[in-house]
Amino acid sequence: MAMATMDEILSAIDAGQTAAVERLFGFLRIPSVSAVPAHFPDCDRAADWLVAELGSLGFDAAKHPTDGRPMVLGHLKCARRDAPHVLFYGHYDVQPADPLELWRSPPFEPTLESGPRGERIVARGAVDDKGQLMTFLEACRAFQQFGGPPCSITALFEGEEETGSPSLPAFLAKNAKALKADVALVCDTGMWGPTVPAITIALRGIVGEEVVLTGPNRDLHSGVFGGLAVNPINVLAGILGGLHDANGAVALPGFYDGVEELPKELLELWDGLDFDAAAFLGGVGLTTPAGERGRTPLEQLWSRPSCDINGISGGYAGEGQKTVIASTASAKVTFRLVGKQNPERVSQSFRAFVASRLPPDVKARFIGGGGSPALSLSIKNEALRRAKRALEAEWGKPAALVGCGGSIPIVGAFKRELNMDCLLVGFGLDDDNMHSPNEKYERTSFHKGARSWARILAALAA
Amino acid sequence: MAMATMDEILSAIDAGQTAAVERLFGFLRIPSVSAVPAHFPDCDRAADWLVAELGSLGFDAAKHPTDGRPMVLGHLKCARRDAPHVLFYGHYDVQPADPLELWRSPPFEPTLESGPRGERIVARGAVDDKGQLMTFLEACRAFQQFGGPPCSITALFEGEEETGSPSLPAFLAKNAKALKADVALVCDTGMWGPTVPAITIALRGIVGEEVVLTGPNRDLHSGVFGGLAVNPINVLAGILGGLHDANGAVALPGFYDGVEELPKELLELWDGLDFDAAAFLGGVGLTTPAGERGRTPLEQLWSRPSCDINGISGGYAGEGQKTVIASTASAKVTFRLVGKQNPERVSQSFRAFVASRLPPDVKARFIGGGGSPALSLSIKNEALRRAKRALEAEWGKPAALVGCGGSIPIVGAFKRELNMDCLLVGFGLDDDNMHSPNEKYERTSFHKGARSWARILAALAA
Repeated sequence: MAMATMDEILSAIDAGQTAAVERLFGFLRIPSVSAVPAHFPDCDRAADWLVAELGSLGFDAAKHPTDGRPMVLGHLKCARRDAPHVLFYGHYDVQPADPLELWRSPPFEPTLESGPRGERIVARGAVDDKGQLMTFLEACRAFQQFGGPPCSITALFEGEEETGSPSLPAFLAKNAKALKADVALVCDTGMWGPTVPAITIALRGIVGEEVVLTGPNRDLHSGVFGGLAVNPINVLAGILGGLHDANGAVALPGFYDGVEELPKELLELWDGLDFDAAAFLGGVGLTTPAGERGRTPLEQLWSRPSCDINGISGGYAGEGQKTVIASTASAKVTFRLVGKQNPERVSQSFRAFVASRLPPDVKARFIGGGGSPALSLSIKNEALRRAKRALEAEWGKPAALVGCGGSIPIVGAFKRELNMDCLLVGFGLDDDNMHSPNEKYERTSFHKGARSWARILAALAA
Repeated sequence: MAMATMDEILSAIDAGQTAAVERLFGFLRIPSVSAVPAHFPDCDRAADWLVAELGSLGFDAAKHPTDGRPMVLGHLKCARRDAPHVLFYGHYDVQPADPLELWRSPPFEPTLESGPRGERIVARGAVDDKGQLMTFLEACRAFQQFGGPPCSITALFEGEEETGSPSLPAFLAKNAKALKADVALVCDTGMWGPTVPAITIALRGIVGEEVVLTGPNRDLHSGVFGGLAVNPINVLAGILGGLHDANGAVALPGFYDGVEELPKELLELWDGLDFDAAAFLGGVGLTTPAGERGRTPLEQLWSRPSCDINGISGGYAGEGQKTVIASTASAKVTFRLVGKQNPERVSQSFRAFVASRLPPDVKARFIGGGGSPALSLSIKNEALRRAKRALEAEWGKPAALVGCGGSIPIVGAFKRELNMDCLLVGFGLDDDNMHSPNEKYERTSFHKGARSWARILAALAA
């Protein structure tokens, strides 16, 4: 069979949109929340769903058990002998949906809403990452009608991306041979604007820590004991309140070891992006950059490390007063890393910071501590140059080369375990409510995302 | 009918013990949690229960509506023309029972457990305050068999003690004439030891504050926004972490205005009590006094002010990680006051402290702020001297004149609104788990408590 033209492939994608949305809805209905043990069976169902989906696309696919949620691995060999081999990665797990009361429709009952840019798909996982990974599989589906994609493809889907990918490094090490490809493709990032595509060339790393402080062996009356008995919430606030200095910098000893100044070339490229910080913050009700003093907003987001308390709890949180000194208090804290910051050392520094500030009778227990370093891709990379041209052909505008404040642990693991570069192309938008109530994915992102991948696969094979 | 002898009264109390425990159990089964709106109807039921109970004791009693939970007010006139008139106060509301999973038996299904000092009554409210207030009514019941108590009695029971008694001042002001008596009696405090009775002559005041910080208009992805968007939990920890200085003192400007050094006589009396701080702290798993440096433990508890965060919450508190910057964070804080500290000024100082530390884009909303000043009773008071002798007769040991770290808003209100002194006699023990899971009241406290009140009423009438 002769190679189809790009127009034929793109027309096939256009013609199959309704069925594509139906398939995505089926995937979104599975509440595969990896952080919550009650949803572990749902994670298994999502993995099974992907195995079936890959099978329908001609992949030889299977579910692989790990110590955590299963991996889905599939292979599709291209008939052309000189075809490049790409590894595509996505994740089928999603963030917890709470607070549920803020959703306009149930998070696991996907719906089409109309918005200022046309219809949008609303559900937990719509953009992160089920909708995004399906753009790639829909491109594969279009090629299938014409003899298959022009590249050999290994597809890898994990179910622990939202919980720090704990099982991934061991799985990669054990399956290095089956996973090694010329380049890895990942669809878990965003556009530069609603009509401007982007390739992400810098990703922050992450360290996630949870600390539980315990003082008295039970909750105490704050009148009877207050002023004499140690209060773990007072202690926790005192310690966490010291994590930042007066200039907004993180106060952990050694935290900035490995943080480097940006190359001038990249800093100029980013300045040229004319990032509208006021609009970015305004979209979430804010007006003022709040991080490290003396940095541009894009530096604060893409090339400077940060520290956020993601959750804190202790004592009585119900209505009214309860005059209690709680026995325990806890907090979840993440650090975003850049440059050569070492996740292990940041984790140790945090734990030492807490431990050194504990008064008598208060004990700290640490949970988590998983992490991944920051990553970057050279702007001279050949796959990057081809993908950039393919995106420009689809969107009519040059693709921006951007950083990303978030972390995708797989990218570090691909580099570390398989010495493989990653091409990060995604179609999310800033207002997609990722990790928030009413998460959505524009239908244009879903549709033109599939078209973009078709063009990129062809460009890589050219 | 001739006056009964004290022996006859006490024998009647002894003989009625089983029935008395049954009555108390009926009262304890009503989950009258005043902090939780879902339990407001239960608060009404508890008030009705008391009206019926007072009626059965010959009181002219009724339930009185307020802006919050109803008051119960009853009058019983003594036939003797020169009989003193006492006002007895108690509260029918109880603390929330959570965390429920730590109770050995359901909190509102009272049970008798055996303990090292004999049987104990286990239920929310067993000691605070249902069991305690019933000691007084059981004394009245014994007198009833012999023509009635030797004093005229006004009984006042409120249902908002655990939420700061917001409706009380207005009720007292409006009903001043009906409530005015020679002295007020309150049973909501503790013994000095399991066999040593006590009269509480110093009570700390209280200010309760709740602060809710709001930053972004929704929860954000901490990777995408971290380092640029303000994090309300980071801000809250920073502010609350500054509430204490390095010496354990409260850092609010002006907080110590009105805090006085103790009279030498009282300090010596307290030093003579040989308070075993190690045992007091050891009972709750602690070893080391944690409050203001340079103060004895009894000073820290009874005559120094304190500040405790009673609850804190924000962001994701479930299992695992959620990399979120929360839109809001909140905390409940109480201050215990002494001497002439002004609750209103402490409240204002806290709010100003928070407001002055807010970065741009973070707004603070304050809830609560109700409070009452600290109170003390002269050790030369005549009612105090008579009650002291009565207690010594019952327990065989002199009653200790003690302070109390907790707050009983009514005491301040009686002084302020009715210019009436308060005699605080109670039978709680340090290990009664007040405000905690498995709250209990010793049967000896309940039994000898009733006998103590019988003796005190007789002593006041003598």
